[in-house]
Amino acid sequence: MPDPMIGARLPRREDQRLLTGRGRYLDDLDLPDALAAAFLRSPHAHARITAFDASEARALPGVVAVFSGADLMEIQKPLAPKVQHPKLRDYPRLPMPPEELHYVGEPLAVVIAESRYLAEDALELIDVDYEVLPAVGSTAAALRPGGPLVHSGDESNVAVLLTQSAGNAKEALGAAPHTLSEEFYQMRGGGHSMEPRAVAARFEPATGQLTIWDTTQSPHYARQQLSMIYEMAEDDLRVIAPPDVGGGFGPKAQFYGEEVVIPWVAKRLRRAVKWVEDRQENFVSAMMERSQTHRVEVGFDDDGRLLAVKDVIEHDQGAYCAGLQVPSITTSTVPGPYKVPNIDIELRACYTNMVPTSSVRGAGRPQAVFVMERMMDRIAAHLGLDPAEVRRRNLIQADEFPYQVGIMFRDGSPLTYDSGDFPALLEGALERIGYASARAEQARLREEGRYLGIGLAVYVEGCGLGPYEGAKIRVTNRGRILVTLAAAGQGQGYETIYAQIAADGLGLDMGYIDVTTGDTARIPFGQGTFASRITATCGPAVFDAAKQMRTRLLDTAAVLLGCSPSEVDFDGDLACVGGDREKSVSLQQLAQVANIGKHGITLPRGITAGLETASYFSPERAAYASGAHAALVEVDPETGGITILKYVIGHDCGTVINPLLVDGQVLGGFAHGLGNAMYEEAVYDGEATPQATSYLDYALVSSAEVPPVELFHLESPSPLNPLGAKGAGEGGTVPPPAAIANAVEDALRPLGARVTRAPVTPARIVDALLAADSVTEKKVS
Amino acid sequence: MPDPMIGARLPRREDQRLLTGRGRYLDDLDLPDALAAAFLRSPHAHARITAFDASEARALPGVVAVFSGADLMEIQKPLAPKVQHPKLRDYPRLPMPPEELHYVGEPLAVVIAESRYLAEDALELIDVDYEVLPAVGSTAAALRPGGPLVHSGDESNVAVLLTQSAGNAKEALGAAPHTLSEEFYQMRGGGHSMEPRAVAARFEPATGQLTIWDTTQSPHYARQQLSMIYEMAEDDLRVIAPPDVGGGFGPKAQFYGEEVVIPWVAKRLRRAVKWVEDRQENFVSAMMERSQTHRVEVGFDDDGRLLAVKDVIEHDQGAYCAGLQVPSITTSTVPGPYKVPNIDIELRACYTNMVPTSSVRGAGRPQAVFVMERMMDRIAAHLGLDPAEVRRRNLIQADEFPYQVGIMFRDGSPLTYDSGDFPALLEGALERIGYASARAEQARLREEGRYLGIGLAVYVEGCGLGPYEGAKIRVTNRGRILVTLAAAGQGQGYETIYAQIAADGLGLDMGYIDVTTGDTARIPFGQGTFASRITATCGPAVFDAAKQMRTRLLDTAAVLLGCSPSEVDFDGDLACVGGDREKSVSLQQLAQVANIGKHGITLPRGITAGLETASYFSPERAAYASGAHAALVEVDPETGGITILKYVIGHDCGTVINPLLVDGQVLGGFAHGLGNAMYEEAVYDGEATPQATSYLDYALVSSAEVPPVELFHLESPSPLNPLGAKGAGEGGTVPPPAAIANAVEDALRPLGARVTRAPVTPARIVDALLAADSVTEKKVS
Repeated sequence: MPDPMIGARLPRREDQRLLTGRGRYLDDLDLPDALAAAFLRSPHAHARITAFDASEARALPGVVAVFSGADLMEIQKPLAPKVQHPKLRDYPRLPMPPEELHYVGEPLAVVIAESRYLAEDALELIDVDYEVLPAVGSTAAALRPGGPLVHSGDESNVAVLLTQSAGNAKEALGAAPHTLSEEFYQMRGGGHSMEPRAVAARFEPATGQLTIWDTTQSPHYARQQLSMIYEMAEDDLRVIAPPDVGGGFGPKAQFYGEEVVIPWVAKRLRRAVKWVEDRQENFVSAMMERSQTHRVEVGFDDDGRLLAVKDVIEHDQGAYCAGLQVPSITTSTVPGPYKVPNIDIELRACYTNMVPTSSVRGAGRPQAVFVMERMMDRIAAHLGLDPAEVRRRNLIQADEFPYQVGIMFRDGSPLTYDSGDFPALLEGALERIGYASARAEQARLREEGRYLGIGLAVYVEGCGLGPYEGAKIRVTNRGRILVTLAAAGQGQGYETIYAQIAADGLGLDMGYIDVTTGDTARIPFGQGTFASRITATCGPAVFDAAKQMRTRLLDTAAVLLGCSPSEVDFDGDLACVGGDREKSVSLQQLAQVANIGKHGITLPRGITAGLETASYFSPERAAYASGAHAALVEVDPETGGITILKYVIGHDCGTVINPLLVDGQVLGGFAHGLGNAMYEEAVYDGEATPQATSYLDYALVSSAEVPPVELFHLESPSPLNPLGAKGAGEGGTVPPPAAIANAVEDALRPLGARVTRAPVTPARIVDALLAADSVTEKKVS
Repeated sequence: MPDPMIGARLPRREDQRLLTGRGRYLDDLDLPDALAAAFLRSPHAHARITAFDASEARALPGVVAVFSGADLMEIQKPLAPKVQHPKLRDYPRLPMPPEELHYVGEPLAVVIAESRYLAEDALELIDVDYEVLPAVGSTAAALRPGGPLVHSGDESNVAVLLTQSAGNAKEALGAAPHTLSEEFYQMRGGGHSMEPRAVAARFEPATGQLTIWDTTQSPHYARQQLSMIYEMAEDDLRVIAPPDVGGGFGPKAQFYGEEVVIPWVAKRLRRAVKWVEDRQENFVSAMMERSQTHRVEVGFDDDGRLLAVKDVIEHDQGAYCAGLQVPSITTSTVPGPYKVPNIDIELRACYTNMVPTSSVRGAGRPQAVFVMERMMDRIAAHLGLDPAEVRRRNLIQADEFPYQVGIMFRDGSPLTYDSGDFPALLEGALERIGYASARAEQARLREEGRYLGIGLAVYVEGCGLGPYEGAKIRVTNRGRILVTLAAAGQGQGYETIYAQIAADGLGLDMGYIDVTTGDTARIPFGQGTFASRITATCGPAVFDAAKQMRTRLLDTAAVLLGCSPSEVDFDGDLACVGGDREKSVSLQQLAQVANIGKHGITLPRGITAGLETASYFSPERAAYASGAHAALVEVDPETGGITILKYVIGHDCGTVINPLLVDGQVLGGFAHGLGNAMYEEAVYDGEATPQATSYLDYALVSSAEVPPVELFHLESPSPLNPLGAKGAGEGGTVPPPAAIANAVEDALRPLGARVTRAPVTPARIVDALLAADSVTEKKVS
C-alpha cells in the first residue's frame, strides 16, 4: 500500500498551470465565434420603466439583437429563494424585470453584438424613460412606519420576522445581577472574487442541448432552475462550471437573471453568446452581505457567567430575497462557543432598494460573533475581570459534546455541536499571543501614552451540511482512474484533495488518478460549493466510491489471475498476486476486460462489467468547526490608525486532509475577515444609490495589509462522517472583525472609546474618541 | 400494480413520428453550418498511388480543404478487427491509405466544401496517377498457388486457417454405409439499410470535446477506437447514434475509415463537417457478406441418421479482415439442430480485392444452414425417405438441453444450446404448410407437368451473447423515469420495449417512462446492437435497474409517509400508503426530496440521495434461438420462375417481450432472407471490379416480392437470463435460402436439376435444368 495521502502536506496539482499563467477562466474559453453581451442596468434605486426604445441601438452596425425584459416574457419567471421559510414574504425576483426596477444595477435589457465594445456603445443608444420612485436605503428606513415601499403596492418592507429562543430570556434578564446592552452594526461588503461572474452558452440544434459555461458555485442548482424556467428536460441543459475559477466566496452560489438571459438568447439566436461581468457591474449587481444591526442585551452573574442573551437583528435583505440562509445562520450563531441558558433572538429581515444580499464567505456568522465577542469584553470590563477569564468561565467544555445549544438549526432540527475543544483553542491562542506578557506590555506602554490592545474572539461555525454530495469513480479504458464530482471548485484544490482521498480509498498512488468537477453532464446530482460543506460531504462520497472500486478491481484481478482477492494488491498500477509483479494485471488490462470484454464476446465468470462506482454521502446534520483568534494591536489615538503587531489563529476543522491547503483557506479567509474588520464598506447613500462602485472608493484588502499570522490546528474529528472532516473555507473570515474591534476598544479603554461598528476604520476610531471625550466632558461638566 | 407489460402486443412509441415523416435521420440533424464531405475512392481493385495533385480542386470556390491519406498520417492507424483470433494474419486496414489501395471504393482522399455538390465537383478535379496491380476476384483465385497477391509483398492471401472437430469424421465417413458430397456457393450480398452510413462531427474548443453523430450500431465501440487512434481521452469524445436510424443490419456495426476521417477533419478545421454515404458509395464501400464456398461430405446410415459431416469452407474476407465473426459463426452453425457425432470443419478465410466482408443480418448462419439443410434433402432423396422424416430422426430432442454440440463457440468455450424444442417447431411448420396434402398435390400436379416443391429448413441461431450490456435508470427532478441504454436501436423499437421491461420492474405505468439510447455521454460502457444480443443482455439490465429503482422509490416514499416500504405501492405516479391516494407522494416529490433535498439543506434520515440506479448484465454464454421454415413453391421449368404458394415460419426466441415487434423482426428478416434466396447478388468480375453498383443491377427485394407468411411462435425461455429472452433480429433471415432451394430442387427432382447456389435465380434454374438434361443425355447416350 502506498503511504496514506489523507493528511499529507501536498502542493496543489492546479498550481503548475495557475502559477504559470495557463489557467483558463471563463473569458479564456475558446469560443472565438461567440457574440458578446452587455446589460443595460437600472440607474435608479427604484423606478418604473415608462418607455423603452432600442431602435437606434439595433441599427448600430455589429449589433445583432437587443432584448428588453418585455421582449423575453417567456423567461420572466421568479428566481426562487435558495433557502426558504414558510413565513417568508417573497417578492418575485425576475431575470430582467419588464416594468418596475428595485435597485441600481438591476438588469433591464441586454445587447448582443459582435464585440463587447460595440455592445457597450449600443447600451448608450437605448432610450429609456423612467418614473423614479422613492427608494429605501437602509433597514431603519425600511422599518420606518409610513416610509416608502421597496416594492410598490406591497404591504410592508418586512421579508420575514422570526424568533429563536431557549429558556426564558426576558425573565432571566429581569432577574440578572448585571445586564449590559449595545447596538452593533456591520456594513455591507461583497465577495470580490478576482474573476467576476460570467456566463457563456451555445445551443447545439443537432442534439437540442444547450451548453452553459457558468462561473457558478452550483452548476446543478443552476441547471435545475433553468430546467424549470425554460421548461426544458434537465438533460438538455449542460451546465459546466469551468475548473479554473477566480474565486466564488458566496455570491456565485446564488442564481442570477443574467444566467437565465444569456443561454436563452444563445438558443434563440443560435449563436454562442458570452457575458463577463465587469468590475463596475460586479459592484452593483453581484450579491453582497454583512449589513445587519444588532440590539443586544446580556445578563450575567458576578463571576461573569452568562445568564441570558437577547438580540434583535435587523437584516438588510436588499431588493429581493435570494434566500434566508444568512439571517438564519446569524440567529443560530449568536450563542457561539458559550453556554447560554436563556436566549431570545428576534430577526427582522427587510427589503431595501439595494442589491440583494446573500451569503458571502462567513455568511451571517461574522456579525453574530462580533456581537457576542464584543459583549464578552464588555462583561469583563464591567466586572473588572480579564476578558480571557470571562470566556473560560462560559465556554462549552470538551467533554460536553454532542452539545445541544437549545435553539434550532435552520432546517428546524435542534442545533447540536458535534465535537470540538474550545478551551484548548482559547488557551492555545493565549499562549501563542503571549497573553500575560502582552498585558504587562500594555500596562507599561500606557504609561508612555501608547495604546496596545489585545482582542480575542472564539467562534463556532456550522459547516459540512447536507443534503448530500456525491462522486463517481470510473476506470477508463486506458487505465486511468477518473474521479467525478458534482461540486465545482473555487480554487480550493479539488483536483488535489479528492485525488488524495481517492488514493487512500483505492490503495493506489495518486499519480493514476484524475479528478473532474462541476459538469452536470458527468454526474446527475449535486448541490454545490458553499457553506464550507464539500470536504465533509463529497469527501466521504469519494472515499466510499474509491473503496467500492478497490473491491471491484481486486475481485476482477483475482478472476484473471486465478487467485482469491485477498491475495491481490497493487504495486504501482499492477495488481499483483502475493506482491509478485510477474503475476499481475495492469489497471489498463483490468479496464479492457471489465469494460470491453475479452475478445469482445465474453466476460470471464465472476467479473462485473463496467468499472464504475458511485456514492452519495448525506450527513445526519451539520458539523461544527471552531476557532479562537487573538490580536495584539497598537492604536494611534491621533489618527485612528491600527497596527496589528501579532495575530494568532487557532483553528479546528476536524480531520485535515491537506494541511497546506487548509492553511491557505484559513489565511485567505483571514484576509477577507480583515477587510470586513478594518477596510471594506459598500457605502450607499440615503436614496440607496451606491457610492462605492470601484476600488477607488472601496478599500479592498490587499496582501500589503495582511500581517503575519501564527496559525495552529487542533483536530476534533467530526463523528458525523467517516473522514471526520468539517469545513475550512470560512473559519478564517468569521472572527477578525470581533478580534480587531475587541483589541481596538481594549487599547483605547483608558480613553473610553466604544467600538460598535465594523469595519473599524481610522475615521470611526477618531469619531469614537471624540464621542468619548464629549461623554467625559459631560461627566466633568 | 399495472398489468404486466412484458409480453404485451403494443405498437411502437416510435411509430407516430416515423409514420408521419417526422423521423430525424442523420442527414436531417440541425447542423446548418456544417461543411459537406465527399470521398475520392479507388477506381481500381488493386493499385498504388504514384502521384496525387489536388491543387485544382483546392482552388475551386467553395472548397475549404482537400486531404489525401498522406495529409492525415497522424490518423493512419490500423482499424482493429472486431473479433480476433491468434492465428489471424491481419493486414492493417488504414482509414484512408496513403499508398496502396485494395478494392474499388476504398477512400483515398476527402474534399470538404460548402456543399456536397461542390465537394463532388472538386473530386473530379483531383489528379491521381495509379500503378494498377493485378487483382484477386474470388476465393478460388485467392487460393490459387502462384496467383496474384491481394496485398503486395504479402506471403499469401490466406487470412486464417481454422478447424472445428468432434469425434473422428474421417474414420466415420470411411465407415459410413452411405456418403454424399456436394459443393455449395452463396453470392455476396449487402445490408442495404434504407439510410446509408453517415457521420457528422463538431469540435467544441471550449470543452475540448468532439461530438460525433454516427449511424453506427456501436457508439461505444466507435468511441473506444477513436480514443485510441486520436489519442484522446474517451470523455473528450461523445459518439451519438441518433435514435432514428434507417436500419443497420450488420454493416453499421463495423468501424470504417470515414468514421475516423470526418471527426478529425471537423476538429482540424474547427467547423462542423457532415458526410452521408450515397447509394453508389454504399455499394462499393459498406461491408458485405455471404460469399462462401462449401465442399461438404456427409455420412449416414440406412435410416438417414447422420454419422459424420465434413465441410471445407472458403470464406471471402474481402480486402481486409474487419473481424472473424462471420466465418467463426459459420463453422459453429453447420451442425444446426441435428445430432452429429463426428464433425470436421475446415475454414479457409482468404483475402480478395473486394470490399471487406463482415456481419450482415444472419451473419454466417444462412450459408451453414443452406449446406446442412440441402444435404438433409439429399440424404432423403438418396434413401428414398421423406425429407421431414429424415430431419425428425436427426433432431436434438426437447429433453436434451443443455445440449453440447461437441465443437467450440468462437470464444473457445464448448458450444452449448440452452433450450428449445426443435421437433415441435418442425411439426408446427409441417402442420401449417399442410405437408401431407401438399405432397399429395405435388404428386397430382406432376402428372399435369406442373412442378410443386416443398422445402424445409430448421436452424439454430446463437444470439444474446456477451460480454455485457447495461442500463441506467434515473428519476429526473421533474418526476420522469429516464431509462438510459448504451445500445443504439436500429428500428427495433427500443423506446417501446425497454419502457415495457422497465415498467414491469418498477411496477409503474409505461407512460411515466422515457428511454434514451446510443449516446456515450449518457452511459460510459456498452457494446452495441448486433448479433441479436440486446434483448437478452440489455433487457435483464433494464429489469434489474428498474427493480432496484422500485426499492429506492418505495423506501424513499416510506420515509416521507412514515410507514414501512411494504405498505407503499404506486397508483399512477403516486406512491400511496395502503392504496390511499390521500396518503401519498408523487414521483416528482420523491425526486425533489431525494435529488435536491428538503429546503436544500437536509435529506430526511433513511433517504439515499440521487435517484439513479445502474445495472450491467453479462450472460454466462450465448443463448440459442431456433426455428423451422417451410416453403411450398411452384417452379416453371421453361422460365425458371418460382412462385411461392405458401410460406410458414415457426420461431422460438424464448420469452417474447412484444409479439408485435417480434413479428416485425421475423417478417423483416424473412424479406431479407428471401432476397438472399432468390434475388440479391453483388456481382464482381474476375478482376474484382464490382458489376452491381445501383439497384438497376442489384435486385433488392421489395415488398412486392414478399409473399404472405404464416408465422407461429414457440417460447422456450432461456435459462441464461432472468427474462428468458433470446434474440429475434436475425432468425427470419437465416433459413429462407435453404428452404427455397430445397423447395426448388424438390419441385424439379423429376427433371434431375441440382440446386447448389444461392440466390436461386431463374437463370440458375434454367442452367441447372440444362445441366440435368446433359447428364440425362449422357446417361442415355
